[in-house]
Amino acid sequence: MIPKPETLVLIDIGGSQSTVALSSPDGRLMARRTLLRPEGQQADGILQSVIERIEALQAEFPESLKSVQRCGIGFGGPVAQERPLRSEHVRGWENLDPCRTLEERFGWSCRIENDGLAGALGEFHYGAGRGGRHMIYLTISTGIGGGVILDGRLYRGSRGFAGHLGHLKIGLDGPLCACGGRGCFEALCSGPSIARRARDRARARPREAAALIARAGGVESIQAKTLLECAIEGDIFSSQVVQQVGEDFGRALASIFHAFDPDRIVLGGGVAQAGETFLGVVRRETELRLLPQFRGKIDITGAGLGTDSVLFGALALALGQDEM
Amino acid sequence: MIPKPETLVLIDIGGSQSTVALSSPDGRLMARRTLLRPEGQQADGILQSVIERIEALQAEFPESLKSVQRCGIGFGGPVAQERPLRSEHVRGWENLDPCRTLEERFGWSCRIENDGLAGALGEFHYGAGRGGRHMIYLTISTGIGGGVILDGRLYRGSRGFAGHLGHLKIGLDGPLCACGGRGCFEALCSGPSIARRARDRARARPREAAALIARAGGVESIQAKTLLECAIEGDIFSSQVVQQVGEDFGRALASIFHAFDPDRIVLGGGVAQAGETFLGVVRRETELRLLPQFRGKIDITGAGLGTDSVLFGALALALGQDEM
Repeated sequence: MIPKPETLVLIDIGGSQSTVALSSPDGRLMARRTLLRPEGQQADGILQSVIERIEALQAEFPESLKSVQRCGIGFGGPVAQERPLRSEHVRGWENLDPCRTLEERFGWSCRIENDGLAGALGEFHYGAGRGGRHMIYLTISTGIGGGVILDGRLYRGSRGFAGHLGHLKIGLDGPLCACGGRGCFEALCSGPSIARRARDRARARPREAAALIARAGGVESIQAKTLLECAIEGDIFSSQVVQQVGEDFGRALASIFHAFDPDRIVLGGGVAQAGETFLGVVRRETELRLLPQFRGKIDITGAGLGTDSVLFGALALALGQDEM
Repeated sequence: MIPKPETLVLIDIGGSQSTVALSSPDGRLMARRTLLRPEGQQADGILQSVIERIEALQAEFPESLKSVQRCGIGFGGPVAQERPLRSEHVRGWENLDPCRTLEERFGWSCRIENDGLAGALGEFHYGAGRGGRHMIYLTISTGIGGGVILDGRLYRGSRGFAGHLGHLKIGLDGPLCACGGRGCFEALCSGPSIARRARDRARARPREAAALIARAGGVESIQAKTLLECAIEGDIFSSQVVQQVGEDFGRALASIFHAFDPDRIVLGGGVAQAGETFLGVVRRETELRLLPQFRGKIDITGAGLGTDSVLFGALALALGQDEM
């Protein structure tokens, strides 16, 4: 599917940061600008800073921006009828209508979708899902989102809420999830959840965790990224934590294969960027939990668009590729 | 969808029993014959006794059987390319081709599908799923099977294995599943699994379980059916076990809503026949585990065709309604 020759504005609104970018007429991303969310910033503050960043792009690329007619938004929370319902991580979105705000402010036609669904669209049309038929996309970052492509089309379900795969219940108890429940895949395996698991274990076994603690600059500074980097370099303590996380991924991904029998699961978001070491653990632990008829026949791969899956999904959305 | 005016032979091959029936030209089931599987009987023995039962029907209803041209089979195990792959509960199916055997023996055109998928087809076209769009069917009996109807069509997935919802991984450990894994919905909530949980708890607390033990005629004779009957009558011990089982159903069904966002989940098989008391527990425990946007908006209902969902699915299959 080749995008029409036009410039579009693409926005990825996440729990910890947002990104504004342009897509060039030949379908490449340009002028990518990332906005870190200050502690405590609420929805209206985020929307205001997105608008300011677009205005800055207007000043910087006046010719390109003048030609823009369409805008796509991937949003980190549930979306219904082109509006955010709420976010589990940021307050206030339920009172805002970002599409209408941008349409009134800039005169564009604007569409918004949940970032998991948008990421799935992006990977399917421009990334690791190209040429497939049934694809599941998971994004592992502040939370765990997902999107389901069946028969080449975005599957939304009865109310538009399908693909909330971060809330597969893979454990009996476990830490409290942002949704208020326990046992959720997200509460065990999102970026912050992985970091918390590593910190908890490092506090309990500081000697074994010495290399990880040193790399992070202190137990409380351990992030999922630090953990994965240390594991890749062969640190035993870090590898053990990654193995435990991989077992939970195995439970979730085996469930997804058994439910959907997709030809591919694509893992996106920051954690999946850790690369083949982590993906190898996830593949092995998933394989161990599959019914015999699935074994040796599954495909789990990293996002082809890196951290840009959602922006490309916003592009697909603005171009109406979710309806094709 | 109204079936054409013809008589068809319908077969439901399960782990503990099989059923042979005819569908009349006006779409009703008749001459239903159930074959209990003797302990240790293997696949070839089951197929042989199905053939003998059909021959007995030929002797009993010669005119009806003479007009038969098509046959549908729901099979309790994975099916690929109109053949059983294997069964987790009975040995030897992987070496047999029931469709070909019946075609050669009786001259019919014959189709076979996994019984979860067949049950979904049956409920969607003739039972509790009529008029819907996205429906998930679960059958709770010897195992837990399932089938997925999306946009009014049977969703099979990439290899025909979608809907194996009994192998959602809802626990970290738990009893060993027939699939060889642990934490499976089926290993916790199938009929035999429910019975085992009730027996384990009754052995540990025989005084509290006195009413249930008396009803069953001994701890070792407790079945899921006995447990559910005692719970419906208000027995506290039995109600506590049903509550625990209901919590596991809640985990599995919440996961299914989050993944598929169906307009309805239909529960079939023997356990679901326990009726509204059990369904009420399942609904409440599912509701407790849902994301806010799903709460108060879900539909969980018992099979409209009782234990005949798979036979009606075999009818839909023989009539080609899976491709409509």
